[in-house]
Amino acid sequence: MNEPPAQKAKSPFPDAAQRKAAREAKREAVLLAAVRMFNERGFHATSLDDVALSLGVSKPTIYHYLGNKDQVLLECVSIGLAQLQQAAEEARRLPGAGIDRLRTFLERYAQVNMDDFGRCVIRTGEELLSPASAARFRAKKREIDDALRALIEEGVADGTVAAPDARLLAFTLAGALNWPARWFDPAGPMSREDAARAMVDVLLQGFAPRP
Amino acid sequence: MNEPPAQKAKSPFPDAAQRKAAREAKREAVLLAAVRMFNERGFHATSLDDVALSLGVSKPTIYHYLGNKDQVLLECVSIGLAQLQQAAEEARRLPGAGIDRLRTFLERYAQVNMDDFGRCVIRTGEELLSPASAARFRAKKREIDDALRALIEEGVADGTVAAPDARLLAFTLAGALNWPARWFDPAGPMSREDAARAMVDVLLQGFAPRP
Repeated sequence: MNEPPAQKAKSPFPDAAQRKAAREAKREAVLLAAVRMFNERGFHATSLDDVALSLGVSKPTIYHYLGNKDQVLLECVSIGLAQLQQAAEEARRLPGAGIDRLRTFLERYAQVNMDDFGRCVIRTGEELLSPASAARFRAKKREIDDALRALIEEGVADGTVAAPDARLLAFTLAGALNWPARWFDPAGPMSREDAARAMVDVLLQGFAPRP
Repeated sequence: MNEPPAQKAKSPFPDAAQRKAAREAKREAVLLAAVRMFNERGFHATSLDDVALSLGVSKPTIYHYLGNKDQVLLECVSIGLAQLQQAAEEARRLPGAGIDRLRTFLERYAQVNMDDFGRCVIRTGEELLSPASAARFRAKKREIDDALRALIEEGVADGTVAAPDARLLAFTLAGALNWPARWFDPAGPMSREDAARAMVDVLLQGFAPRP
């Protein structure tokens, strides 16, 4: 008779899948500690020693999971950019009017920028990255800008979005919804969802009263 | 008979007023060279040696006019903040409806953020400044936020501005009009004035078509 699976899981020796999951969890914990410190203190004022100390591990442990400080920063902005990219892809697959898809994307975009990795995307100047990493960072940001522009143009095409200049509208919306990376306080009275919805409402309706 | 003033100006020995003007012109040239390099390369990647080199002067000359790199940065952001402050004061003194004063301020605010010293205000994270300078920087930015909030509230009070949440509208407008510090290209096809006007139009009208 075979051992039942529940017994097997009690072995003190983790199997390959468990080792992989544990490694992934450690990597994520390092990234989260690092991104919060970058956002709080700035990249230059953060040392991997401080990140290691905050997790109760050694600096070589961080190198083992992620590499040097530049590599850690690149990984942090890559996670934020992937979240924004995913938001764009999901919005573009939705049925319905252009303005609804655009609104869905904008709310999710704002929410990402209020969260740890999105904040890091906004707060990281290209000059902090190596030339090769800066080029990748710029290319990925460009993809997200292009997705926003395409959503605007689809809304203009179906008559649900007003935009005399789609490029300028894209920059204006992006700026408004990037800025929470600087001012939004997750410990404040407003949830990320409510703040994102209210900002997108303002942008959609405008601040001149509607009849 | 006295010498006519035109003759006096030809003396090879500058008088006190001329020395003061020359000193001020040199100080401004150093600040402009420095702020452009900070904006282009980032604060950490800029050395006062490079700034001096670009002006064909020695580093001690820069110290003489402005002090160390932190002091130069603080002076650059102070000039940008003073321009924003002046825009707010001028707008608040205008006659007319609240929305017109708000619109005037917003356009000027965007224009400052597209110019050298305003760009530096937006691109400078507080963590780059000493704790004392960061506190002054924060206090001045707060004054400008307060002025924007007051202009919004005056417009709400006279019924010309729609803002269910004045604080949130202020952050949304500020974000949209800060962002040109990152994307606006003074060498591009659009003038600062046109770009500012078009952005404020978008924010005023909203991107949902008006009936």
